[in-house]
Amino acid sequence: MINLNKIITKPLSGFMELLPAEQLVFNSMVDTIRETYEKFGFVSMDNPVLERAEVLMAKAGGETEKQIYQFKKGDRDLAMRFDLTVPLARYVAENRGRLVFPFKRYAIGKVYRGERAQAGRFREFYQCDIDVIGDEKLDIAYDAEIPSIIYSIFKNLNIGDFTIRINNRKVLSGLFEGLGIKDKSVEVIQVIDKLEKVGEKEVRKEIEKMKFEPAVVDRIFDFLQIKGDSEKVISKLKKFEVSNLLFDEGVEELEILTDLIKKMGVPEESFEIDLTVARGLDYYTGTVYETRLNDYPEIGSVCSGGRYDDLAGTYISRQLPGVGISIGLTRLFDQLLKKGVLKVGSATPTKVLVVPTNKESFEYGFKIADKLRGAGVSTEFSLVEGKMKKKIGYADRLNIPYVVFVGEEEISEKVYTLKDMETGEQKKLNEKDLTNVLNCV
Amino acid sequence: MINLNKIITKPLSGFMELLPAEQLVFNSMVDTIRETYEKFGFVSMDNPVLERAEVLMAKAGGETEKQIYQFKKGDRDLAMRFDLTVPLARYVAENRGRLVFPFKRYAIGKVYRGERAQAGRFREFYQCDIDVIGDEKLDIAYDAEIPSIIYSIFKNLNIGDFTIRINNRKVLSGLFEGLGIKDKSVEVIQVIDKLEKVGEKEVRKEIEKMKFEPAVVDRIFDFLQIKGDSEKVISKLKKFEVSNLLFDEGVEELEILTDLIKKMGVPEESFEIDLTVARGLDYYTGTVYETRLNDYPEIGSVCSGGRYDDLAGTYISRQLPGVGISIGLTRLFDQLLKKGVLKVGSATPTKVLVVPTNKESFEYGFKIADKLRGAGVSTEFSLVEGKMKKKIGYADRLNIPYVVFVGEEEISEKVYTLKDMETGEQKKLNEKDLTNVLNCV
Repeated sequence: MINLNKIITKPLSGFMELLPAEQLVFNSMVDTIRETYEKFGFVSMDNPVLERAEVLMAKAGGETEKQIYQFKKGDRDLAMRFDLTVPLARYVAENRGRLVFPFKRYAIGKVYRGERAQAGRFREFYQCDIDVIGDEKLDIAYDAEIPSIIYSIFKNLNIGDFTIRINNRKVLSGLFEGLGIKDKSVEVIQVIDKLEKVGEKEVRKEIEKMKFEPAVVDRIFDFLQIKGDSEKVISKLKKFEVSNLLFDEGVEELEILTDLIKKMGVPEESFEIDLTVARGLDYYTGTVYETRLNDYPEIGSVCSGGRYDDLAGTYISRQLPGVGISIGLTRLFDQLLKKGVLKVGSATPTKVLVVPTNKESFEYGFKIADKLRGAGVSTEFSLVEGKMKKKIGYADRLNIPYVVFVGEEEISEKVYTLKDMETGEQKKLNEKDLTNVLNCV
Repeated sequence: MINLNKIITKPLSGFMELLPAEQLVFNSMVDTIRETYEKFGFVSMDNPVLERAEVLMAKAGGETEKQIYQFKKGDRDLAMRFDLTVPLARYVAENRGRLVFPFKRYAIGKVYRGERAQAGRFREFYQCDIDVIGDEKLDIAYDAEIPSIIYSIFKNLNIGDFTIRINNRKVLSGLFEGLGIKDKSVEVIQVIDKLEKVGEKEVRKEIEKMKFEPAVVDRIFDFLQIKGDSEKVISKLKKFEVSNLLFDEGVEELEILTDLIKKMGVPEESFEIDLTVARGLDYYTGTVYETRLNDYPEIGSVCSGGRYDDLAGTYISRQLPGVGISIGLTRLFDQLLKKGVLKVGSATPTKVLVVPTNKESFEYGFKIADKLRGAGVSTEFSLVEGKMKKKIGYADRLNIPYVVFVGEEEISEKVYTLKDMETGEQKKLNEKDLTNVLNCV
């Protein structure tokens, strides 16, 4: 026999579980992201949460590998996905002959990382991804469409101003090649990544430890000094003397990209070239993106991604280049909720509660409830037994904005008494007017 | 080093993974179910997939327990949810003070059962559940609302005629009590459950093995003979002589229920009282539901559920009665797809592909793409380099219904050339007419 008192009913730590009113806000963010992805022509993909462990292990390295929820069932080694990109790679490898390229897919789903528990970190969280995958090649123009999608999403999410930061890994790699410190580029990029956090002085100190020629260090900081609007940055980069083809290629890509981004309608104040953006090391090979909320820089990047040359090389020999982004929605939602940016309102989708004043008016009430639902209005019919006060109390506690009363009088006059729960105002309306009022809620 | 050739890229067996065109059909079914649940005022809940193993084990019995994906991570015993009801019970126990009752929630999510692999069985599958939970009591009227929701969903899913079968566990239990065979009711119900599959003769043989008085056996079959429209069944049940209070209570509930169901607008041909419907044994205590597709009885019940007295007794001492249903969507989708009931069409949400005829018309094209998206039309801009044939080929292979050409001529005339991909017809339209045409696709 199980001891009842011992079962903990809290969710596991690191697993977000919301109350209804919060859940509705979360869902509306998911809906906004999904709708935007679909409006840009991305098709939904919904891969299994469980994979053969070897599929994930082939792509996971270092920290990630330790975080994977892995286990045996029967004689199978299984693992829970830690991102949506590895399943995408497997899927495209498996279905290459059945897909149309460029393959544009979105995925919104839960992923799992058994991290050390700490505030603001989740072990189960939503990622909202898009990727465009080419078959052997993919035009740079696809890199430009991504910021226009990011722009559209964050404008629609309505959580304040944001800046899409763009860089190109070829520019960084080319610079280090040109400066003859290619073998140290990993370390240098890691140090540069901390620039915003620790400041220039600290970064300089760390780079000086690497024992480069003083001239090389100066060149790195000259490069990092390059700022301004995209046109200015491009023109400065063009004048920046690094005799390296990769660097030149990266600058050219940035130029094509920023020109297209502007033509696609992303305003200059919403994006910038930021030469310090690096995004990991192994995966991305060209354009990289980060997105910051201007009023909450401490949240860090809320939407990141980039261009990669080879999505599925681990599984097939065909080269599949791609470009994509990911929004870590659970963390973003959690942070915005804690900061009070998100407005949490009603605890139900219901817009109107139909309340019969006696048993005889049930059928009349059911009919109008049915019609309102048909017109797209979320409608509950009050089935609770008891006093009127109790019925109204239900609407009140859930913040349902309207109540419709039906009774003898309403039936004989063929009307409905609508009560605005905020103002307390009541009026009798016919079916058409009632539907019109409620349709606009 | 991993041997590349050895990694299998198929999904695990028992895990559904769809191609884009199929996924769109699946999603539209999910959307229909979600919208209907929300129109009836149910609020979304999204519990974690992982739970403390003890939370699930407390509720899982027999077969289910063996099927649970259970594992250790660090010092935690974890398990993947095998249904959406156990997490609901835990959630309501945890949040009772913060919820408004009756608490109406829906959940659409993946659940996991490591069953023996067999055709038509899934190890990861979607359940689409609603439950209404009362605090200590819940009026019988809520049992009547459930069929009206089932009716609304299956009408909207548009997959053919269906019948909602209703019974009441009290009628069955009362009958067996009244006949003095209460201690055998489990076995008798299990045999009756097979009636449709094996026929009356076989069932009679099995019941006779139980060595009841012949008069008792006759009474059971007299009872099972009761058929007809709901009014007729109720009237026959009322005349059926079993001197048992539970039986009488069950019949009374069925009468209240069917009267309300009709008033709620569910037509008589879409539901019936079926006295052979039993639905499991421990959990349900009153009304039970099953739903069959009339043209595909072999699929079995596609939406089942019932009334239970005690949702969360394993976790808290407060009594929380409820009523709910579940749609096993993955299996339903799979069966309907194989039978050709579902129409699989386009492999993208895109309704129109904007194709620039030269580089100079990019900006003009971006603008109309942006406006069309703003008007709710899923729009892609063709970014593929190469010949016109290749661009049109992309729309063709994805079944995108329309292409819009923009070039020198269109810019100077301020129009857009719309091509209907099915008829091949082309015409020049201004922005307003173009939006109107595409908005109706």
